[in-house]
Amino acid sequence: MNILITGGAGFLGRGLAHELLKNVKNQILMKLVLADIMPLSDAALKGDPRVRVATGDLRQLLNAGLLQGMDGVFHLAAAVSGECEADIDVGLRANLDNTRALLDACRAVPDATAAPRLVFSSSLAVYGGDMPEAITDTTLPQPQNSYGAQKFMCEQLIADYTRKGYIDGRSVRLPTVTVRPGKPNAAASGFMSGIIREPLAGVDAVCPVDPQTGVWITSPRYAVAGLIAAYDTPQEQWGSRIAMNLPGLSVRVAEMIAALRRRAGEAVAARVRVAADDTISRIVGGWPWRFDTARARALGLRGPAAMDDIVAEYVADYPQAVV
Amino acid sequence: MNILITGGAGFLGRGLAHELLKNVKNQILMKLVLADIMPLSDAALKGDPRVRVATGDLRQLLNAGLLQGMDGVFHLAAAVSGECEADIDVGLRANLDNTRALLDACRAVPDATAAPRLVFSSSLAVYGGDMPEAITDTTLPQPQNSYGAQKFMCEQLIADYTRKGYIDGRSVRLPTVTVRPGKPNAAASGFMSGIIREPLAGVDAVCPVDPQTGVWITSPRYAVAGLIAAYDTPQEQWGSRIAMNLPGLSVRVAEMIAALRRRAGEAVAARVRVAADDTISRIVGGWPWRFDTARARALGLRGPAAMDDIVAEYVADYPQAVV
Repeated sequence: MNILITGGAGFLGRGLAHELLKNVKNQILMKLVLADIMPLSDAALKGDPRVRVATGDLRQLLNAGLLQGMDGVFHLAAAVSGECEADIDVGLRANLDNTRALLDACRAVPDATAAPRLVFSSSLAVYGGDMPEAITDTTLPQPQNSYGAQKFMCEQLIADYTRKGYIDGRSVRLPTVTVRPGKPNAAASGFMSGIIREPLAGVDAVCPVDPQTGVWITSPRYAVAGLIAAYDTPQEQWGSRIAMNLPGLSVRVAEMIAALRRRAGEAVAARVRVAADDTISRIVGGWPWRFDTARARALGLRGPAAMDDIVAEYVADYPQAVV
Repeated sequence: MNILITGGAGFLGRGLAHELLKNVKNQILMKLVLADIMPLSDAALKGDPRVRVATGDLRQLLNAGLLQGMDGVFHLAAAVSGECEADIDVGLRANLDNTRALLDACRAVPDATAAPRLVFSSSLAVYGGDMPEAITDTTLPQPQNSYGAQKFMCEQLIADYTRKGYIDGRSVRLPTVTVRPGKPNAAASGFMSGIIREPLAGVDAVCPVDPQTGVWITSPRYAVAGLIAAYDTPQEQWGSRIAMNLPGLSVRVAEMIAALRRRAGEAVAARVRVAADDTISRIVGGWPWRFDTARARALGLRGPAAMDDIVAEYVADYPQAVV
């Protein structure tokens, strides 16, 4: 089995790659292609004989035969919410146009014995506006930011290409994934990692929203497990073509900081300073944070049980990032 | 006030043009541009000094300055459901790409004192799959055909461009408009006009679905009135950016034929022969036919009260088409 990950040099892509190389259910992973516009910095992945790295613009890579011999795709590459809100054209090109080019390339794979399986990472950011108490998979998304609008349009394309038999597509909506390692990114949700990661590294961090803001989060390990389950589940069991909300944790930002305090002490937690940012507060405050993920749970998918587990996972996985 | 109608040579576009030229609420219509890939055949419209005809590919017309000086747009141009299902690329280009090009042109209008107002004609075809007993504006569309998927993606683009302030957009979902005059088109819903129009003209007609199939229809006059109301309603009253389902009539196909019989007699109604077509039955049978259009009704919008009224409207408006 040969698999492509777009956004393969990103944090989630690398985590997924490591997991796929460790263990793919009932299949032998022959080749894993990590495509990204950014170069891959991960010696272990680069050293694996099954891994190929493809660096460059997705459409150029597709034109150069990126999909040749691929059985499946995890499509994670995207412009993040902050970038999309700042420049709608950047978002439309990176998210909508590139996804469509990828789907058309999947459809054109020569000698495919079956439609390529494609897992698309969508986001809770499709939601906003007037919402019910708890979001379900059939709640109408009313995107209040361009990133969410573009992700939701991609879900429609993927559902229609699947219906036509061009691909076997599954869209999953990820909660905000935290704690992300490394540098902050341009996502409006970036602070949800920063307020844990920076204090643990001995660095001050800003919380740009009211700490009473509720958020819907998951950990890297649970996010990767959800993506792999979306790939592994047989089509008849996956069922509906509408996007699936992956399980997560409903938590207030204050409780995230409290978990940090429980783990690392008062002095570390005190490194978080609240300084409201209107744009970020508006975007993040407009996202829902209570979900009923019955469909995903019926497939056995789970989210983290508590914020303490998320902090513990980060400390275990990135000990070098903790002072 | 200067207005552009895309799809202006089509049946609905022409009807809308006639109505706008007769009476635009509180505004003086200076110029009405009818853009279409097909030439306009309507002597009265061509003879009106306020009308300009622009024939050609929409994107070429936009590049040539179609939007210059326009205050508003009715965007009706589209590839119809049958075409889109036969060739997904045709549909994506005609529906998604052209709409996006139009929105970008609206956004780029120089010296605009206000964001151009844009009314987008979407369709009940966005719905399908598992649906509640009655569709409301917040029911999640689950398109089961490419036309519906493309219309729904366009709604998202329009909502996001409106949110960004690039346009003042309103998407309305039209019930199937019947009775359309003239020749049959490639829409899967085309028979809903054919089974009335052809027998009245002394021609046999095929009903390609089980007559017990329920459908959601409106008449040309009500459709035009709905489009104009979507344009005339002040933004604060229009409210939500999600698409509005326009009121219509829930009716079974058998009742459509019964209304024809009541109007024109047994011999005319007997010209309708039932011969099921699997593709059309699947597409049309997958559309909902019961709606709760509370939001539109709160704006004073109405649909036809009975099928008899729809038949009567056609006979009154197209006497030359009735033998």
